[in-house]
Amino acid sequence: MPSAVRVRDQDGRMPDFAPVTPDIISALEAIVGADYVLTLEPDLLRYGRDETEDLQYLPEVAVRPNSTEQVSMIMKLAWTHNVPVTPRGGGTGLSGGALPVFGGIVLCIDRMNEIIEIDEMNMMTRVQPGVITGVLQDQVAELGLYYPPDPASNGSCLIGGNIAENAGGPHCVKYGLTKDYVLSLEAVMPNGDVFRTGGKLKKDVAGYNLSQLLVGSEGTLAIVTEATLRLIPMPTTRRTILAPFDSLDTAAKAIVAVYQSRIIPAALELVEKAALAAAEEHLGRAVPYSDAEAQILLELDGYDEEAVDRELMRAGEVLLEAGALDAMLADTPAKTRELWTVRKCLGEAVKKQAAYIECDTAVPPDRVPDLLRGVREVAAEYGIKQISYGHAGDGNIHVNVLTNDPDHAVREATLRPAVLAIFEVATRLGGTITGEHGVGCSQSRYLPMCRDAVAIAAMRAIKDAFDPKGILNPGKVLPTEVPPPVTVGSA
Amino acid sequence: MPSAVRVRDQDGRMPDFAPVTPDIISALEAIVGADYVLTLEPDLLRYGRDETEDLQYLPEVAVRPNSTEQVSMIMKLAWTHNVPVTPRGGGTGLSGGALPVFGGIVLCIDRMNEIIEIDEMNMMTRVQPGVITGVLQDQVAELGLYYPPDPASNGSCLIGGNIAENAGGPHCVKYGLTKDYVLSLEAVMPNGDVFRTGGKLKKDVAGYNLSQLLVGSEGTLAIVTEATLRLIPMPTTRRTILAPFDSLDTAAKAIVAVYQSRIIPAALELVEKAALAAAEEHLGRAVPYSDAEAQILLELDGYDEEAVDRELMRAGEVLLEAGALDAMLADTPAKTRELWTVRKCLGEAVKKQAAYIECDTAVPPDRVPDLLRGVREVAAEYGIKQISYGHAGDGNIHVNVLTNDPDHAVREATLRPAVLAIFEVATRLGGTITGEHGVGCSQSRYLPMCRDAVAIAAMRAIKDAFDPKGILNPGKVLPTEVPPPVTVGSA
Repeated sequence: MPSAVRVRDQDGRMPDFAPVTPDIISALEAIVGADYVLTLEPDLLRYGRDETEDLQYLPEVAVRPNSTEQVSMIMKLAWTHNVPVTPRGGGTGLSGGALPVFGGIVLCIDRMNEIIEIDEMNMMTRVQPGVITGVLQDQVAELGLYYPPDPASNGSCLIGGNIAENAGGPHCVKYGLTKDYVLSLEAVMPNGDVFRTGGKLKKDVAGYNLSQLLVGSEGTLAIVTEATLRLIPMPTTRRTILAPFDSLDTAAKAIVAVYQSRIIPAALELVEKAALAAAEEHLGRAVPYSDAEAQILLELDGYDEEAVDRELMRAGEVLLEAGALDAMLADTPAKTRELWTVRKCLGEAVKKQAAYIECDTAVPPDRVPDLLRGVREVAAEYGIKQISYGHAGDGNIHVNVLTNDPDHAVREATLRPAVLAIFEVATRLGGTITGEHGVGCSQSRYLPMCRDAVAIAAMRAIKDAFDPKGILNPGKVLPTEVPPPVTVGSA
Repeated sequence: MPSAVRVRDQDGRMPDFAPVTPDIISALEAIVGADYVLTLEPDLLRYGRDETEDLQYLPEVAVRPNSTEQVSMIMKLAWTHNVPVTPRGGGTGLSGGALPVFGGIVLCIDRMNEIIEIDEMNMMTRVQPGVITGVLQDQVAELGLYYPPDPASNGSCLIGGNIAENAGGPHCVKYGLTKDYVLSLEAVMPNGDVFRTGGKLKKDVAGYNLSQLLVGSEGTLAIVTEATLRLIPMPTTRRTILAPFDSLDTAAKAIVAVYQSRIIPAALELVEKAALAAAEEHLGRAVPYSDAEAQILLELDGYDEEAVDRELMRAGEVLLEAGALDAMLADTPAKTRELWTVRKCLGEAVKKQAAYIECDTAVPPDRVPDLLRGVREVAAEYGIKQISYGHAGDGNIHVNVLTNDPDHAVREATLRPAVLAIFEVATRLGGTITGEHGVGCSQSRYLPMCRDAVAIAAMRAIKDAFDPKGILNPGKVLPTEVPPPVTVGSA
């Protein structure tokens, strides 16, 4: 079992975890009910995977609590027995943050899925962490309200996971990330203690900002059991332009031109030709302008139709002046949906192409042309295929490197040197190794490329302060040597 | 000397600090130059005060470094000798955050006042912490850019202090607080180690969000030596409405009506009659509608003049329907400035009235009417005068309780029970003890009213992780027994 693996982390400490015994299973059943304690192999396989490439780890047990009190009791049990606990949301993560790399307990928050309150008056909502992001968005939309963070997985990802990963999405370029919507949290400490970080307040500076420390901490410091989120009025007008370009470089430079013109895009996405080809294959139909070398998807929104339309005209002109071959307007909801369908399927579409590793690079927005040039040079040097697309307005480009060999070891040997070279390009441009997917276990080895030793030591000290036993989501975020993934059937 | 005072904090730990010896003074002079090491009494008096009521503490020495390296060397020296260090910005704080309550070294960052870069393209700026907020705002405005956080003191407060306190201001209701503009920081640890939290990036989730942990930590975890801040395009249209009301309650309810109508105010301020009277006295002239029981100041802004004007008409109607006696439009920059002059002088104006204590309450915005009702009940019960005004759109109301006796002890005895009662009202409504002024040393005793014991223990563990010796800004944020202020001349 993976829990038998003992691996020292870089500080030489030994996560000396105990195995999950039959007594612990019984205690878990007493807490959540036998129906919600899963120990059969198909369940363990399912709870040992997320959307991160081909990684697979086996938990010893998965539990599905339905209240803060149950989460607290599970953590008290795990704390007492020194058993690792890996919190899990929708399992849509892209950096292995929900994978039980040291075995132990997977604690899935999917049953805690109540929207406790939508406070129209104060434009806030209180939710349990198991609410599906898209469900929350739909519910608040019915009241004319908007929750902007929209990762591509918003039909299945959970708010708790979004908070753990500080999830982004296309509309962050105007509206900010998950962190910008978290007002306060209720959470459970590794030892089972429950705390709140604040209330339904727009301003509150009483003590350290624990809310913001927990957002993006990937479930390594505490388990979020309730969130108070900010909402905004739903924009009443939305317009999308698709602009094809005959070179990736021209498209990347057009993004710079949009910024220079002080247009405020609600989304500003870049897709290159190889990604469009993958989308056509995935969707089984033609997509607009798929012969272009690159496309920009620019969205504008607002509360005054005439004002949005004026900005739209200006944006179209800027794109054409910057070299766009066309500026195709999606002026109906159906046309807008179609353009976004193409953009949103890219993750899945690329995945179907081949075995791949995704580099979630981000650079200062005006360095995107340099990043893309550097990526192409790396691909040429290492003789591999790459597909890039993403939130160019934020400087956040998802670079996928691909191989046709599905074997994990071959994939690693072929692609890993190119991944390292791409991160070297990104960090040399002042960028980061992850713009929105998180560090998890798949990127932690690269953390020292974009964070200095003092900052990493501070993070480690914070982790130790919250979790001196190191039982909560071990092997994530901080550089740690973790066991190799298991090979299971076709995984 | 205050540094001789030895006081245990609530955990029974003893801040066993060493005094500042002549050798330490010499070492400080070697680091920053003799001109920037201040030991004369008038200097020590000045560096021992901020804008917090009548508090006065004496440092043993004040130093004014001009580089990150100098800050690092000062901290290494203090760390080695176990001397407390209190970082100081513009000295405009309202919770005693910059007061050297245990003596030692005051480290003032005012000479580190360079705007290193204004990156128009990426709409970011890199600044040293000693830049005056208003100076930065003016400089970026020349390029059509906007840095929204605008505490009333923005003519003299420093960006470093704003970051330490997570400063707010009237425009936060639309644009967010200081934290929403901090992209990354360079900072010096208590032991002198220097680190960076990231780069010029709009998205970066590599590890724990140390930037957001430092924002609002009041200089207790590390000293910020450089900040990368986000800018936005400067709104091209700005309109302000002044709406007088014949009752405070009606005015407070009108704010709720503004929200219900989904208007997005750029500022939404509430001022009650007693504050207007104080403003007239302070300015030495009449102010508009000073006979009204309360006034609302509502500002709208945007990038499309027609759209802003349409929203303005709607806002005027909402206010009149909600009971406003008038909706007076400031449609020129001069008229707008005049309305804001009145609003922005209130802090100073109230201060001149009498000895006072300010309660920086914040509640969910729709509870402002309940808060104001509760405050009036407390004032009646304790037989004291109160003056309330503030950022009602954010639920952040500055409640001042006043006495005519300037003696510190009398002020404490008369007003302190009312302060406690007002915080009880605020927290019963789901509110906090500080919306934007910080905890410092003046509010730390109240922290347990709005943060539970587990959260406070987590904060204490974070403090210990960063500063195991407790030398950096001791006696702040976390509940700690501090020595009484010194009485010096007329202070």
